[in-house]
Amino acid sequence: MTAIRLHSYFRSSTSVRVRVALELKGLAYDYIAWNLRTNEQCSPDYLDINPQGLVPAIEIDGQVLTQSLPIIEYLDERFPGSPLLPAESMARARVRSLAAMVASDLHPLNNLRVLRYLEAQFGADMAAQTLWFRHWAKATLDPLEMLLAHSTQTGRFCHGDEPSMADICLFAQLLNNRRFDIDNAAWPTLARIHAACVADPAFVKAMPEQQIDAA
Amino acid sequence: MTAIRLHSYFRSSTSVRVRVALELKGLAYDYIAWNLRTNEQCSPDYLDINPQGLVPAIEIDGQVLTQSLPIIEYLDERFPGSPLLPAESMARARVRSLAAMVASDLHPLNNLRVLRYLEAQFGADMAAQTLWFRHWAKATLDPLEMLLAHSTQTGRFCHGDEPSMADICLFAQLLNNRRFDIDNAAWPTLARIHAACVADPAFVKAMPEQQIDAA
Repeated sequence: MTAIRLHSYFRSSTSVRVRVALELKGLAYDYIAWNLRTNEQCSPDYLDINPQGLVPAIEIDGQVLTQSLPIIEYLDERFPGSPLLPAESMARARVRSLAAMVASDLHPLNNLRVLRYLEAQFGADMAAQTLWFRHWAKATLDPLEMLLAHSTQTGRFCHGDEPSMADICLFAQLLNNRRFDIDNAAWPTLARIHAACVADPAFVKAMPEQQIDAA
Repeated sequence: MTAIRLHSYFRSSTSVRVRVALELKGLAYDYIAWNLRTNEQCSPDYLDINPQGLVPAIEIDGQVLTQSLPIIEYLDERFPGSPLLPAESMARARVRSLAAMVASDLHPLNNLRVLRYLEAQFGADMAAQTLWFRHWAKATLDPLEMLLAHSTQTGRFCHGDEPSMADICLFAQLLNNRRFDIDNAAWPTLARIHAACVADPAFVKAMPEQQIDAA
């Protein structure tokens, strides 16, 4: 039995991703909460674990792994049941690319530390932050909708009928959108896939409101 | 012989990444330039290739792949010579995590479309853009320096003595830093690894100034 410790914050989108992966794999884990609102992730105790001061991190076999997608790739290599990537290389590239659209082009621009820095550098108030968040959400979710709606490889989920790393990223992002009152109905394929995720207990267990540190 | 077409912009950091990977793999490719300064990446011709309107994209066997790291993962699976990831899963996770620090936490905040949008939404002039760029460069490169300097797994390159996906991302980022007059000497290990990259003809061939569309 492998002992896994997850360093997490209930509302962190990247933490949601790793929680979904752990749940889909059926892996038990200890949950260690760090409160981003009070900057616990910048405490010396946490910086010893991850000098970047970002959640999530996992500890597995005494090693620390950081960065949500590399963690998910690791879990998928180490625990191959319920695969989170397809077997064939071109299909893997498609799933990784859909995941990266959210993970590299959308979420990094809209997370808490960036919104705070917009306030610090430009005096961005909540209205300006909302404008920023919605701009970058739309910039990625519009083409993502188009790509998914037009591909015969899209099924009940982003790639076929089983959840993958792409669904994990999409799910976490659409949850995040709730905080800025974004109506996901603008992207019917994304909304349909999100509904398929919400129908899966593994995704539900990973939601912010299900965590022990939920406010 | 596989025909590969690369859609690129000479100065695009993510395009540099894919060019280095192609050169390290010894793969020949056709170079198709799209001028980001004149928004050619938003032309209908390019949106037909990549609806996201971002470079790079590659065409291989008639299929389009987008997103630099998924493209590199694909090339590494398809052409296993000169591997860009180690063989062992925990080592792969380390390399992917180092790469993701740059690719998910640094570069997305500092690319051209974001700097332009800071100007559009907040009136950020060049001085404010430089402050922003340097803030996010430091936020990732400080802990990256610490992680690399303190790990026995770091060698001539980020992981051992052969270049990997982590070096590719680091190299492209430090090239990018030049545009904002950032002195990479603040990060001695990163500067040392960058020098090892610059000593490798594959990295040199991928540099912006070597491309046919260099200004």
